[in-house]
Amino acid sequence: MIKARVLFSGGKDSSLTALLLKKLNYDVELITVNFGILDSYRYAQETSKILNLPHKVEFLDREIIEKSVEIILKDGYPSNGIQYLHKSVIEILSDKYKIICDGTRRDDRVPRLSYSEIQSLEMRKNLEYLTPLMGFGHKTINSLVEKYFIISQGESTLMLKSDYETEIRELIKIKDKKPEDYFPKHNQSRVVGIKYKI
Amino acid sequence: MIKARVLFSGGKDSSLTALLLKKLNYDVELITVNFGILDSYRYAQETSKILNLPHKVEFLDREIIEKSVEIILKDGYPSNGIQYLHKSVIEILSDKYKIICDGTRRDDRVPRLSYSEIQSLEMRKNLEYLTPLMGFGHKTINSLVEKYFIISQGESTLMLKSDYETEIRELIKIKDKKPEDYFPKHNQSRVVGIKYKI
Repeated sequence: MIKARVLFSGGKDSSLTALLLKKLNYDVELITVNFGILDSYRYAQETSKILNLPHKVEFLDREIIEKSVEIILKDGYPSNGIQYLHKSVIEILSDKYKIICDGTRRDDRVPRLSYSEIQSLEMRKNLEYLTPLMGFGHKTINSLVEKYFIISQGESTLMLKSDYETEIRELIKIKDKKPEDYFPKHNQSRVVGIKYKI
Repeated sequence: MIKARVLFSGGKDSSLTALLLKKLNYDVELITVNFGILDSYRYAQETSKILNLPHKVEFLDREIIEKSVEIILKDGYPSNGIQYLHKSVIEILSDKYKIICDGTRRDDRVPRLSYSEIQSLEMRKNLEYLTPLMGFGHKTINSLVEKYFIISQGESTLMLKSDYETEIRELIKIKDKKPEDYFPKHNQSRVVGIKYKI
């Protein structure tokens, strides 16, 4: 079986990505990155047990998230900073792994690698970068999530998740700023159960 | 089970698309369109038996392929004509089916619907349009094809396939022109066996 690493937050998109790759008989390992700001990776750890898939935390240099937050504070909104962070993460992990996957969907704007960024990355690093949800719209994703998972949904400030946003918000607070001045209110989801055994 | 229709030529991309959707527990029906120029749909019919999936031929108006060939003869190359044909096919089938899927891949240029064309189609027709291979590059597609299928590969003039090109070429011949003046030489594939039962 071929090993595939899935960038994993515990949310519905990365969970569905993992499920889909598992069904294609990849040997899936879930990877949660952490920058040492918060131990938020433990939420993903819990969800990985529910999904019955192996999970690993990749501790990356705090400098990367510091730079990301710098961009966000300067811009006044999070998209460029999150985009920078995601690209940096994939760039770093691709020195170590041959197949890296994430939950980018057709309707996602950020973070999202462009076609030429993907081409460059795959060629330079001899990588396979997979985004298995890219061919699905939100209606289809919702129906697949509904079919396979039990999710808990809520406002992003209250959700216990292991995504980039959780540590970014904390770092903004550490810098005596208010995360809500930079992040618009939005809903987040976390997978808390499965309806079929994967 | 939710019914999903897959536009099917008997080639590796549409076969892999069908397999992936089957693995996501969709009730897959393979659809081959035909414009009455040639009975080329029978190659897809054969491959559908190999895949053990139900197959249906949708006979569409000859006018559509006539228009497509008109565009190709005017342009001197096939991309716009094929794009026109594919968009017309999806537009017509979406009056009849709720979920339509095709084998468009990340690296494909034509035929390929743009993001806004997809949005418009899904909203106007209350359709789900899925392109499950969109998140995969050619290296990944090749490795998945290799894992699941036995394929026969050859030059496009010699391959017995049920794609748009087969009938387009024939119609160009009927009009006393040479298809090879319009189509660059390229390789085509057809699935002739499977390595695992789907």
